[in-house]
Amino acid sequence: MKRTNKYIWILVAAIWLVACRNEPDKTHYPNIILTGDAVKAIRAEQTDLPLLLHSIESLKKKTELAMLDGIDVPAPKDPAGGYTHKRHKQNYINMYGAGVLWQVTGEARFANYLRDMLIEYAAMYPKLEEHPVKASYAPGRLFWQQLNEAVWLVYVSQAYDCIAGILTPAQKDLIENQLLLPYANFLSIENPKVFNRVHNHGVWAAAAVGMAGFAMDNDELVNRAFNGVETGPKEDVGAGFLIQLSQLFSPDGYYTEGPYYQRYAMLPYLLFAQAIDNNRPEMKIFEYRDGILKKAALTTLQLTNTNGQFFPINDALKSMSYMSTSLVHAVDFVYGLDESQKELLGIAQEQGEVIICEAGLKVARAIAKGEAKPFKWESKEFRDGPDGNQGAFGVLRSNSGKQSQTLTMKYASQGMGHGHFDRLTIAFYDQGKEILQDYGAARYVNVEYKHGGRYLPENKTWARQTIAHNTLVVDKDSQSEGKVKVASSHHSEPWVFDASKEEVKVMSAKENKAYTGVQMQRTIAMLNLPEVSDDAIILDLYRVESYAKHKYHLPYYYMGQMMHTNVNYQAETSSLNAMGKNDGYQHLWHTGEGIMTEGTNRFVWLNNDRFYTLTTEAQTKDKLLFARIGAGDPEFSLRNEPAVIIERDKTDNTLFASTIEAHGNKHPVTELVNGLKGNVAGIKTLANNSEHTLVQLDMTNNNKVVFAICNNTNDQNAMHHLTVNGQDYSWTGAWQLFKK
Amino acid sequence: MKRTNKYIWILVAAIWLVACRNEPDKTHYPNIILTGDAVKAIRAEQTDLPLLLHSIESLKKKTELAMLDGIDVPAPKDPAGGYTHKRHKQNYINMYGAGVLWQVTGEARFANYLRDMLIEYAAMYPKLEEHPVKASYAPGRLFWQQLNEAVWLVYVSQAYDCIAGILTPAQKDLIENQLLLPYANFLSIENPKVFNRVHNHGVWAAAAVGMAGFAMDNDELVNRAFNGVETGPKEDVGAGFLIQLSQLFSPDGYYTEGPYYQRYAMLPYLLFAQAIDNNRPEMKIFEYRDGILKKAALTTLQLTNTNGQFFPINDALKSMSYMSTSLVHAVDFVYGLDESQKELLGIAQEQGEVIICEAGLKVARAIAKGEAKPFKWESKEFRDGPDGNQGAFGVLRSNSGKQSQTLTMKYASQGMGHGHFDRLTIAFYDQGKEILQDYGAARYVNVEYKHGGRYLPENKTWARQTIAHNTLVVDKDSQSEGKVKVASSHHSEPWVFDASKEEVKVMSAKENKAYTGVQMQRTIAMLNLPEVSDDAIILDLYRVESYAKHKYHLPYYYMGQMMHTNVNYQAETSSLNAMGKNDGYQHLWHTGEGIMTEGTNRFVWLNNDRFYTLTTEAQTKDKLLFARIGAGDPEFSLRNEPAVIIERDKTDNTLFASTIEAHGNKHPVTELVNGLKGNVAGIKTLANNSEHTLVQLDMTNNNKVVFAICNNTNDQNAMHHLTVNGQDYSWTGAWQLFKK
Repeated sequence: MKRTNKYIWILVAAIWLVACRNEPDKTHYPNIILTGDAVKAIRAEQTDLPLLLHSIESLKKKTELAMLDGIDVPAPKDPAGGYTHKRHKQNYINMYGAGVLWQVTGEARFANYLRDMLIEYAAMYPKLEEHPVKASYAPGRLFWQQLNEAVWLVYVSQAYDCIAGILTPAQKDLIENQLLLPYANFLSIENPKVFNRVHNHGVWAAAAVGMAGFAMDNDELVNRAFNGVETGPKEDVGAGFLIQLSQLFSPDGYYTEGPYYQRYAMLPYLLFAQAIDNNRPEMKIFEYRDGILKKAALTTLQLTNTNGQFFPINDALKSMSYMSTSLVHAVDFVYGLDESQKELLGIAQEQGEVIICEAGLKVARAIAKGEAKPFKWESKEFRDGPDGNQGAFGVLRSNSGKQSQTLTMKYASQGMGHGHFDRLTIAFYDQGKEILQDYGAARYVNVEYKHGGRYLPENKTWARQTIAHNTLVVDKDSQSEGKVKVASSHHSEPWVFDASKEEVKVMSAKENKAYTGVQMQRTIAMLNLPEVSDDAIILDLYRVESYAKHKYHLPYYYMGQMMHTNVNYQAETSSLNAMGKNDGYQHLWHTGEGIMTEGTNRFVWLNNDRFYTLTTEAQTKDKLLFARIGAGDPEFSLRNEPAVIIERDKTDNTLFASTIEAHGNKHPVTELVNGLKGNVAGIKTLANNSEHTLVQLDMTNNNKVVFAICNNTNDQNAMHHLTVNGQDYSWTGAWQLFKK
Repeated sequence: MKRTNKYIWILVAAIWLVACRNEPDKTHYPNIILTGDAVKAIRAEQTDLPLLLHSIESLKKKTELAMLDGIDVPAPKDPAGGYTHKRHKQNYINMYGAGVLWQVTGEARFANYLRDMLIEYAAMYPKLEEHPVKASYAPGRLFWQQLNEAVWLVYVSQAYDCIAGILTPAQKDLIENQLLLPYANFLSIENPKVFNRVHNHGVWAAAAVGMAGFAMDNDELVNRAFNGVETGPKEDVGAGFLIQLSQLFSPDGYYTEGPYYQRYAMLPYLLFAQAIDNNRPEMKIFEYRDGILKKAALTTLQLTNTNGQFFPINDALKSMSYMSTSLVHAVDFVYGLDESQKELLGIAQEQGEVIICEAGLKVARAIAKGEAKPFKWESKEFRDGPDGNQGAFGVLRSNSGKQSQTLTMKYASQGMGHGHFDRLTIAFYDQGKEILQDYGAARYVNVEYKHGGRYLPENKTWARQTIAHNTLVVDKDSQSEGKVKVASSHHSEPWVFDASKEEVKVMSAKENKAYTGVQMQRTIAMLNLPEVSDDAIILDLYRVESYAKHKYHLPYYYMGQMMHTNVNYQAETSSLNAMGKNDGYQHLWHTGEGIMTEGTNRFVWLNNDRFYTLTTEAQTKDKLLFARIGAGDPEFSLRNEPAVIIERDKTDNTLFASTIEAHGNKHPVTELVNGLKGNVAGIKTLANNSEHTLVQLDMTNNNKVVFAICNNTNDQNAMHHLTVNGQDYSWTGAWQLFKK
């Protein structure tokens, strides 16, 4: 629907004349994200800075293409995915692009396009009522929900900021008083509950209102963004941006929903903070709470597989990576604050673009000077919860480079509504590839065919269930009865995290509440033993204490093709059945099983031309189950990927002791095969009780190591001594590796 | 086992002294593949030619590493995969490397290493008898089969050629008369049947003997390679290299076993031909049979998906690509012959290495000068059979670049023992990715876990069967009763191949013998209609004539995740059964089915963030079956990939009319989705009889096209006229596209 009343066209003509007269250098410069100094420097230096030039050219290409399409500001009508929804999203992106390009190129066509569109919006906005799609707890006007409404204003504030200086007083009055100010009021004083909410919806709203305030030099709006709005005597907790900063990230910059959502939640924080830093530098917003925003940005970057994709814990789409716009902002803004962080430039190079502002300019300059260093992935524990005491997410890496081996363990809190019932789950990555996977979410975002792009029913029935993860399932039930409310009332307990030694990096955590009466502790030791292997050997000790006897299932969702096992198994060859009826088991086909022999059992698979071996110590009657995802899937929505499941029945206290290792390779073209066999020849528990667990690994090259972990104290100074089979083991601290 | 007798060590010492005295420039230059002129030029230019320098450095690194390991010439003992087998393979690679490096660097250590090893071999060889592993029809001495034996000599001849000039007469005498000459005799006069065989084993043997001849200036050996050896009155067909050149490739340079084996068979041809060209240029070997070797090399390059991997028809491993050493030789030697072929340089750049010889030098020079052009993939029909009259393999491409869409159809001969029962099968590729796959071979080469790396039992029971391919199965039986002998007695018949027009490229072929009493014709039209879509629309018309009624299955092995279908189907959610007991059906799980509605039916899937749609015209009672590979697989060796199968039962004459198209995308990071729906809204057969088939496509943008193919004449000048529903259709030639 194009609006064409007379009044508008007279205005447009007036603007055209004004715009054509204005040279860009004479204009008022913007001051929110893009600033005057940056504009001048960008104009002067862009041809010498390839990354910046490319970013400008790319923005130009996209914006010019959109401009060819003409201006369309349709009456709001459609839900997410529909035309009016998509169009208003596209419009804010185009307005932002046009604003930035007007500043950078000085070409009047960009300013004209932006102004024309703002005036169309100003003409329509006062007439709008609540969006006709009634599906949100917080409906917007342009969009079905206020979240999108806020995002629109975050971008449009920046766009307006870029042309405010060349508008006539009448135009400014129209755009500010008919559009931006009422729009900001709608998001704040008219919807205080969303605005004050400590939640990413609240952050977007605060950022939108605050940035609109800066764009219009309206201190009241800015202060509202800082402080929230009053809603009467019932509200006595604080609100606003500063509270958001205090509450939503842990002291390590970890966001409880996980990195997929953290990536999204980061953007309004970063944008508003940058705007604050540019306009109220005295607030030192980036130093707030011990530099929490910088920490959050760096944590998001660290929470990636070395191919750049975020660890897909909780509801997460696996393809999302640090190539996302949010992370381009994160990299640029953090580098803008601290130009010593040359490792960020390595990621900026991969991203292949910069934000067109002071920070992006700094990044482009440094890269042009050849200052980029490769990003360093760290072994680190990221504490969860506002005070950092609600469990953690642990990451061990064999080294800091792209080819490293990475093992993650989740021992955090539930992660709100997007959390999975997956306490103590692990995932393993080698050279940027998923080897033991976390399934992630069951969803095809924005693909209308698949339930309109929303979460699929299988997200609840499969992806969130415990059996969908590489962690223990007790009696085929999910943790916390599969109830978010129950799970949200407790969290796992970190026990040990020690990545200080190259040779052995250790993490251990306990989970005592997921299953009533069952106490679990999982310990991961990443062994880097050059005398044994160039690749890390992961020791995985899953200890259980229980008064009652249970059936335990410990699945490993290996990615790739099964190559070999020494377990005597029988595959199902003529018919398959689902493994159960509920708790996720209804989505697994039982493809075979075998009874393991007591002692060392091996399972070998091939993934992308490398071999991987799971070596596990079995007890009498333990079974190895073979499974494949895909049962109970009436719309063929699940990925049909395999797993092996260790089954130990009628057991109370026990230990699952296993190793996981990468070895050898198969060359795709020469077809040469090396290192077909792993380096662990045997695995044997020497002791496992409430005080200690000791496990011995016999290597194929005859090396032997014994790993010890303490189960009743993690005191770094406690001294331990025990004798097993006539051998003395003495050490200080929570764990030790003995070489024999 | 290291040999250390006194005699050897005295010789080694003598050589050491000689070698140290000799400056490389004073040596006799080699003349087989590497030549004197090339050596001089390489020494002079290498620092300016990055690709050449990299190739030398890389060879140096590998050879130095091997030299550190010392010389070991063990007594032959093991089969393929065992130590002595691998060691002798490694030894010839190391000797070749050392020889080339001695010439290029002039460093005596390389010459010494090579001579020491040759002398060890010379000391051992006369004592060898037939290899202890008795598993080949043609056992070797160093290796279990003569094929490896010949490959050894191909490399060692080149190595010897590099140091022959610095040997003392006594050393030459030892190496030639105790090793090379008896070795060449063993491969020829002592094993005439293999030597004379028109087969890749025979080619390797001829190349080995001929190249040894050139290395020792022994004309008798060279002539033996050209002419074969006499075996008595029974043999009256010719033998030797020239006959091999006449017989094994079709006039289009196509090798009947398919490109995976062609890649391997190419190498001895190329090497020996290059040696001939360097030593007997008057033979003009590269012009032999209208330049057959050049054609074969270029055909091998053309028989690739645009990611470089060979089309995996017949028994083929999918990872094999033009990165293979064979193809580095092919690219370099062909460019060496014809420096106008700048498109070859594009592949050489991808290969990242050159052969260290005159031809490789030319490639490196041209690339350093920036002359490389991207390789152009062509739409082409490759005729099969020595005379080119045994069917063909057809390839249609939407354009010549890496992002093109490619559709292949196999209507060739059986392809000997490695052939599949897959007449008229198609495969579809988009942007270098497999979209409708050919399964390839069931094998994990060199992976001992999987049947010693040999072909798996499932290669016969599954991979070779008709149902494993995207072609019609009649009554659930494989073509030609699944018998190689039967299938080898006939071949498909090319009908039309016309890639002359950008807008429509057409191929059509008939197969009348695969099923008794059933005549089949498949026609593919690749439509490039910019007014409808940027992507090609593939029209797939599978026509059947039969006196009796049959059950027809037409499978499409789509790669990716099912997104949508308008067929009302029921998925199997709690149990699965195999689809049959034989002919490959025992390897398919029946995962669901639906009865199609008469008219247009659609199946949409997602692969690597692009959407694909199969649109098919159904008749009443047609079914769409859903299947997944993996039943009857007791060792979990198959890849568990999906298919949809169109089932039409109790039918004689019929037409399966379908389109396949790529459309839209799903961005992995912005999560934006475009082009969710394909461009074909409807498909309808207007006529289908023994004379013509006419099919109409209704596009979503209201364009309509009608494609006509003639079934009883492919005369380019024949005129046709018919009226359907009151519409006149007139055209000249075998096919036509009408736009309405």
